[in-house]
Amino acid sequence: MMNIGIDVGGMTIKSGIVDENCNIIETLIISTEVEKGFEKIAQNMVDMINNLVKKAKLTLNDIDTIGVGIPGVADEKGKIYFATNLYWVDVDLGKILRDNFPSQKIYVENDATVACVAEHSFGSIKGVKNAIMLTLGTGVGGGIIINGEKYSGSNGIGSEIGHMVINRGDNFYECSCGNNGCFETYCSALAIIKYAQKLVEDEEYSGKLKGIKKEDITAKLIFEGYEEKDDLCVKVVDRFIDNLSTGIANLINIFAPEFITLGGGVSNSYNLYIDELYKKVQEKIIFKKLPFARIVKAQLGNNAGIIGAAMLK
Amino acid sequence: MMNIGIDVGGMTIKSGIVDENCNIIETLIISTEVEKGFEKIAQNMVDMINNLVKKAKLTLNDIDTIGVGIPGVADEKGKIYFATNLYWVDVDLGKILRDNFPSQKIYVENDATVACVAEHSFGSIKGVKNAIMLTLGTGVGGGIIINGEKYSGSNGIGSEIGHMVINRGDNFYECSCGNNGCFETYCSALAIIKYAQKLVEDEEYSGKLKGIKKEDITAKLIFEGYEEKDDLCVKVVDRFIDNLSTGIANLINIFAPEFITLGGGVSNSYNLYIDELYKKVQEKIIFKKLPFARIVKAQLGNNAGIIGAAMLK
Repeated sequence: MMNIGIDVGGMTIKSGIVDENCNIIETLIISTEVEKGFEKIAQNMVDMINNLVKKAKLTLNDIDTIGVGIPGVADEKGKIYFATNLYWVDVDLGKILRDNFPSQKIYVENDATVACVAEHSFGSIKGVKNAIMLTLGTGVGGGIIINGEKYSGSNGIGSEIGHMVINRGDNFYECSCGNNGCFETYCSALAIIKYAQKLVEDEEYSGKLKGIKKEDITAKLIFEGYEEKDDLCVKVVDRFIDNLSTGIANLINIFAPEFITLGGGVSNSYNLYIDELYKKVQEKIIFKKLPFARIVKAQLGNNAGIIGAAMLK
Repeated sequence: MMNIGIDVGGMTIKSGIVDENCNIIETLIISTEVEKGFEKIAQNMVDMINNLVKKAKLTLNDIDTIGVGIPGVADEKGKIYFATNLYWVDVDLGKILRDNFPSQKIYVENDATVACVAEHSFGSIKGVKNAIMLTLGTGVGGGIIINGEKYSGSNGIGSEIGHMVINRGDNFYECSCGNNGCFETYCSALAIIKYAQKLVEDEEYSGKLKGIKKEDITAKLIFEGYEEKDDLCVKVVDRFIDNLSTGIANLINIFAPEFITLGGGVSNSYNLYIDELYKKVQEKIIFKKLPFARIVKAQLGNNAGIIGAAMLK
């Protein structure tokens, strides 16, 4: 039997048929057409699934599960509470898929949890008993593996690790969730960029980022500047590492996992900060002399969304 | 078959034989004799177990498991890394019990996890799938139930929820773990007392706590003052509620459990702060319009330590 995995993004919807060895044997990609609204996009997804199966010269009888990763929050029945970038609020993707594919098991999950399942199926935390994934992208997403299975809480809406407050009221901007001091407002790509933009504006500074338009400052540039020892970039990245170590120490104190794996764009610079990160995590965890989680880099690239969704159960 | 549960405290060691319906059918209590050191105390525990079985007119063949709750940290084999109040460091209680009782399964766990297992076996979170227990005592202890089973991490040393940093560097005193800003430095009985002591000292104040010796200020007095609307006590308890709501919102965002149960001495005043606590938790969680965990009061009293230890597996 084979599974279908679907990765819903703001620009494209990627689908693939995945065999039991995690090989993608066929793919189909469509554009998301956000402006046409949920009903139309859901119908496009149904058509895409049928076309994908035909393209692979299979029938639906060959397909066991259909899993979907979304940039938002869904409950265990596939009802989506919201997916901000898609302008979806209270839409029932699970029901539409079940109505159209009554012989397949249907799963809908947050994309960070899907990425975590992919890493657990065949990536950096393959087969591990207990692990946490942090996706350091625009926000900070969280995925949790407990006893070898994904964990997203009683109603499927947990693992929102980016909204763990670590520093109440201390940050210069508010989190989208309404709090001030969330993990993601220190450790996402956006957080890094915002802090650099603020420093470029606020301080006497004539280094690497001087003269670059604020909106053109990227996390990649900042990490390059860190490597080149540019004062401002060092200050920004040091702050990132310091807060990342606090968040990770919290997770180790609570979960005592074997692994923490870092994904998302900011994990591309993993080699630049991992030594300092380990040092600070060890200083901050409660049991400083005992072995603690390995902090590794996620291994999977673009296809992780498809494969993770296909592995949902 | 019956189990033995042992609750090791700084003053006494309580033991009991517990049947499959969670009834304690016999007990035996000895004093802890901290000053005589680990070897002697462990021998006393072995003798206690044998005497307990005799007292109940049973033999060891009737006993399936022996579980021990300790005020400290143990791995899954019963090696205790430390139990600060007992002055135990790197002692192997599990091995001594296995050597003396080779036919019984031996479990050693942190006492907050044991309290959580007791509440899950027959108290406030009985049979719940996912739940968190916070013991608000001298420190803040944590217990975690995931998929109906206790969770304490890959090496058994997790669930240290009291050392989740929520407010980096903000507090006026350092946590014993070396960080500043840990949950327990805002929400334990000790935290409440310390803050009241500081305010009595610092401020022009002529209310309830004026003239009381600093070392005689208790959490009970402070909550009485809160009820009587004493300015200082209101300020102390408001700060406690505010930070408790941040910590609980973090846990709900991460775990999305059905229940959070509050135990320990500070939970005695649950009725005084639960309404305000719910309100603030709802303001702080990411999904403010979705149902979230019920926050309840632990139900079990003195015997929870024995029964929880007997239920370990």
